[in-house]
Amino acid sequence: MEAEGTTNKEVDLQALNTIRFLAADAVQTANSGHPGLPMGLASVAYSLFTRHMRFNPKDPAWPNRDRFILSAGHGSMLLYAMLHLSGYALPLKELKDFRQWGSKTPGHPEWGLTPGVEMTTGPLGQGFASGVGMAIAFERAAAEFNRDEFRLFDHYIYAIVSDGDLMEGVASEAASLAGHLKLGRLIYLYDDNRISIDGSTEITFTEDRAKRFEAYGWHVSHVDDANDLEALDKAIAAARKEARPSLIVVRSHIGFGLPTKENTAAAHGEPPGEEELAGAKEKLGWPQDPWFFVPEEVRDHFEQSGAAGVAAYQEWQALYRRYKEEFAEQGHQLERRWAGELPEAWEEALPDFEPNSKGMATRASSGQVINALAGVLPELFGGSADLTGSNKTDIKGEDSFSPDARGNRYIHYGVREHAMGAIMNGIALYRGFIPYGGTFLVFSDYMRGSMRLAALMKQQVIYVLTHDSIGLGEDGPTHQPVEHLAALRAIPNLTVIRPAEANEVSMAWKSALDQKSGPTVLALSRQSLPTYDRNAFMPAQGALQGAYILRDAANGEPQAILMASGSEVDACVHAADILSNKGIEVRIVSFPSWELFEAQTQAYRDSVLPPEVKARVAIEAGVSQGWRRWVGDEGVVIAINHFGESAPYQELYKQFGLTPEALVAAVEAVIKE
Amino acid sequence: MEAEGTTNKEVDLQALNTIRFLAADAVQTANSGHPGLPMGLASVAYSLFTRHMRFNPKDPAWPNRDRFILSAGHGSMLLYAMLHLSGYALPLKELKDFRQWGSKTPGHPEWGLTPGVEMTTGPLGQGFASGVGMAIAFERAAAEFNRDEFRLFDHYIYAIVSDGDLMEGVASEAASLAGHLKLGRLIYLYDDNRISIDGSTEITFTEDRAKRFEAYGWHVSHVDDANDLEALDKAIAAARKEARPSLIVVRSHIGFGLPTKENTAAAHGEPPGEEELAGAKEKLGWPQDPWFFVPEEVRDHFEQSGAAGVAAYQEWQALYRRYKEEFAEQGHQLERRWAGELPEAWEEALPDFEPNSKGMATRASSGQVINALAGVLPELFGGSADLTGSNKTDIKGEDSFSPDARGNRYIHYGVREHAMGAIMNGIALYRGFIPYGGTFLVFSDYMRGSMRLAALMKQQVIYVLTHDSIGLGEDGPTHQPVEHLAALRAIPNLTVIRPAEANEVSMAWKSALDQKSGPTVLALSRQSLPTYDRNAFMPAQGALQGAYILRDAANGEPQAILMASGSEVDACVHAADILSNKGIEVRIVSFPSWELFEAQTQAYRDSVLPPEVKARVAIEAGVSQGWRRWVGDEGVVIAINHFGESAPYQELYKQFGLTPEALVAAVEAVIKE
Repeated sequence: MEAEGTTNKEVDLQALNTIRFLAADAVQTANSGHPGLPMGLASVAYSLFTRHMRFNPKDPAWPNRDRFILSAGHGSMLLYAMLHLSGYALPLKELKDFRQWGSKTPGHPEWGLTPGVEMTTGPLGQGFASGVGMAIAFERAAAEFNRDEFRLFDHYIYAIVSDGDLMEGVASEAASLAGHLKLGRLIYLYDDNRISIDGSTEITFTEDRAKRFEAYGWHVSHVDDANDLEALDKAIAAARKEARPSLIVVRSHIGFGLPTKENTAAAHGEPPGEEELAGAKEKLGWPQDPWFFVPEEVRDHFEQSGAAGVAAYQEWQALYRRYKEEFAEQGHQLERRWAGELPEAWEEALPDFEPNSKGMATRASSGQVINALAGVLPELFGGSADLTGSNKTDIKGEDSFSPDARGNRYIHYGVREHAMGAIMNGIALYRGFIPYGGTFLVFSDYMRGSMRLAALMKQQVIYVLTHDSIGLGEDGPTHQPVEHLAALRAIPNLTVIRPAEANEVSMAWKSALDQKSGPTVLALSRQSLPTYDRNAFMPAQGALQGAYILRDAANGEPQAILMASGSEVDACVHAADILSNKGIEVRIVSFPSWELFEAQTQAYRDSVLPPEVKARVAIEAGVSQGWRRWVGDEGVVIAINHFGESAPYQELYKQFGLTPEALVAAVEAVIKE
Repeated sequence: MEAEGTTNKEVDLQALNTIRFLAADAVQTANSGHPGLPMGLASVAYSLFTRHMRFNPKDPAWPNRDRFILSAGHGSMLLYAMLHLSGYALPLKELKDFRQWGSKTPGHPEWGLTPGVEMTTGPLGQGFASGVGMAIAFERAAAEFNRDEFRLFDHYIYAIVSDGDLMEGVASEAASLAGHLKLGRLIYLYDDNRISIDGSTEITFTEDRAKRFEAYGWHVSHVDDANDLEALDKAIAAARKEARPSLIVVRSHIGFGLPTKENTAAAHGEPPGEEELAGAKEKLGWPQDPWFFVPEEVRDHFEQSGAAGVAAYQEWQALYRRYKEEFAEQGHQLERRWAGELPEAWEEALPDFEPNSKGMATRASSGQVINALAGVLPELFGGSADLTGSNKTDIKGEDSFSPDARGNRYIHYGVREHAMGAIMNGIALYRGFIPYGGTFLVFSDYMRGSMRLAALMKQQVIYVLTHDSIGLGEDGPTHQPVEHLAALRAIPNLTVIRPAEANEVSMAWKSALDQKSGPTVLALSRQSLPTYDRNAFMPAQGALQGAYILRDAANGEPQAILMASGSEVDACVHAADILSNKGIEVRIVSFPSWELFEAQTQAYRDSVLPPEVKARVAIEAGVSQGWRRWVGDEGVVIAINHFGESAPYQELYKQFGLTPEALVAAVEAVIKE
């Protein structure tokens, strides 16, 4: 084959086969993986990467690049093939090491590991929904930073989405919101291959997908043959002109080219087998050897087609230099925010709450902190899943982000917790923003899929989870979290903070804002909690260490340690007073965050929880799971290992034995032993 | 007011006001709750309960009753008012004690607490989706038991659903499946009040709902004024004739009658205030006193309208008596299954697996158990969220439940985990069936909202969660659960069982089938695990106790205890052999279930984990959270407190230090101390 003699159409076909067989060869080599999607949709990725998307493989973080999300992450080899061919730092050797220890080509795409991978996908629906977050972030970035001819933000968010994505509720929620918000920069190509793992989509997925998306307010178009590059180009070009989000329904054939497995579920998630692979190569006119074959003309062609992106990149850099001259402040802000840095002395905006024995709910002090920070941190991008007044997440004087007001910084997510979680991931991945979103702690269950991904992707997302225990009272067990603190603490790289009162709330927000490589949960009370007089108690800054001595034994030699998080700290204070009257001196440890405490030195941890003090009592209005670690064999955990009830919360605390009196009795018992 | 002088229309109006003000008075009295929905939708509930639904308040468990689900559970007072007026065992005193400790009128409806409440609702979307499960159960019950003129199962499933329900992904998933399955017995009345907590639905929910449901394959109709009883009646009557599920869009006014709060978010979730309440009574011509007023003619009217249901009930009982004569076997089976009893000697069908050093994956032995039991337990109703082949949940020779085959017992849920969880709840609540459903353990995150409700409602639902650790290998961290065992163990009343090999799998299924008052998770491996020779190891029946001595120290005096769940048990066996060669004798405890072990006597627990043996090492391929409780201060936990990686699983076990060698080293270290 000669490059000169190759027409465009020929090189297109060669390129498609290159992609298909890079994927199939990798899956067969790994003896594990998903050949069906890459073989069926090579054309879609090829069209996007060579004819529509603008990017520079040497600078995958370019803020104005087009984004591409492979929401159907199991087709990872399609993405790896495209990144390799497009010139990203992903050599062929990595493709040959697909799914092996230490490679950059894991089973599903992972953000932060492979250059050019925009997000970690695999759990279906997540990529779809996080793309909506990127489109929201795009709109606000454009509204904030673009100036007349300086269109710094002017790009698209593309995704390949599958039947599985469209079936997942998180995608439905996000699609409804995307339609409402008229996010015209979203262009999703739907792999309509009519096959799911269990067989034909006829067995379970017969809804009219196009009509559903029209109902959401999307622009829907059709490409009847995935391999018709012209039709794809036209559809994508038309979608780019749309003011609404676009769904392009692409009729495709899973495992295209496989002699016996094409159009069957068998093509989805297992190696084709050597014979089937050889048959496909024969059928599509591809050399049997070498495996991982990339013809020179295909390499040349990718290089040529990538030139437009590189040129656009250089043009943008020049524009950006002029922008920074003309709009110095915005330029600095853009650089600061895209670098993930907070402004100097931002902490000075953190409120200092006056002592108050009546105090306020920690959700209320959180609301005050948000509003105090809003002015100095334009990157804060808030919202709530239809519980704004309860979560206290609103920014006073700020209207909602809407189709007519792209610069606003508050998102009404609707009753769509899972989409909120995924959209916040997309906003965080976009960079330049710190998303926070509110719901009740109990409904963290609805968005765990997205919270886990935030943790895995090391993204800064802040969850404002109020009504954090039976302390919410009358709404009853459906709304009272009991297992949720434990369940969230179990997620690696997620920091859970449950502050005891207003000044600890300030510190909790400081911690969340400083945590640039993972998400943070703020668990906040519905009920009022006293704000401590820090002349009588140790400084709230201790909360930054996760646990600290709130008040020590009068003589500095505690007979026992009382420890608690959040609203139960005050029960410890009362118990300590009672015990002191009885001549028993105890230390009170406020313990808002296990994760922050674990990150401290052993010396610090031993200074708070001295190994020699075995008489320890912990109290928390939730399940006891995990507390044994902190109280030791001889300690006592006062907790609720059952669901709550509907009643005024004071009654519940009494009925469930979460009282100063119970703490006193427990301390007396452990001291005796 | 005289009953004789009251026309039907007048009594209708009186009844509507009775319902509205029972609700508003209760909310105001509790100073907590949601008046908006009951006041706006009194007419819908009234139409259903007095003109369409057939039930007998004296026998709320009548299998052929019409079901009513208040999916928008925050409007609980609407349901309590209807149940009270309809003659259920819910005296007025209970309404006056709304949301108080010990009352039968909690903040959100709770199944099992209040007669006539068909399911616990409050978390939005769940009622919507579980109704789909009830409709599926109805269809299969009808197919199994109805005979010619014996239409034992012939009823409807009604629900009131809200904007919030329609926004939730779980409802979208369930609606898509309901349309696919053509569940014509579903009739949902959508409270189109155009108000959500954050304000007008215009701010976030502008999709074309009717069109969306048409796209799902639903029949959609409209009632322009919720208070137009005739229009409601017509719409409901039309829906009953439909072969598709019906959504009746009812334009309503939240807080109808409240002088200043009607049609505002302020009517949603807080007491109206005494003045506003008095104003509403004045506006609607209702006496200011007494509160909780029920006119005699309204009581009479409810009694009369309830007569049709009671007559239908008696007719059914007669029919059922004749049925049992004519179809004795079916009659016995129906009684047995609706009583929640398993057939005699069913356990004999449990397979006994031969020792095999290669063994099989526990998902594979689970598949064999399912198939062995399918013949003796017709109530088993299986399915998978599009992972049938991976979860091994299929019943050989059984086709899928479909519009044309209602008697089949396998459901292709599609990639809709959350709907699967909620639908299984509905199937379990219907009675007569034991639902089980499969997905990967990691995707339990997607259905936690429903799993929690199963636990709270004490329903027998069995989750077949395969690919239970990094042992799934190449698919990588998005698919590898690490925190999930801990997160599930945290849920009260959910039993988590992670069997070590085939015969423990048999016992795990036995345990799950015997557990009639709560759900069970079976956590199962993708990878093969040896089947132990029980001549050399203790009997697998020990697994029923949650933890048991798998093999004791040769001399019966263990120097240390090794404990593990699931796939890590075999590492303990290998470690024990190595240690024995070194002259260190240890006990191996197989620990498939914390919850089952906790339910044992202290004596049994001490016999397995003798308090005097402090040298303990636990190993599990997941986070360590909670294991400290079992190993004590001096023990060691070998675990993974971080996300996994993509690579062959043997490599991962080695890289992450989950090896017999690591166990040996840990034992040697703890013994030295």
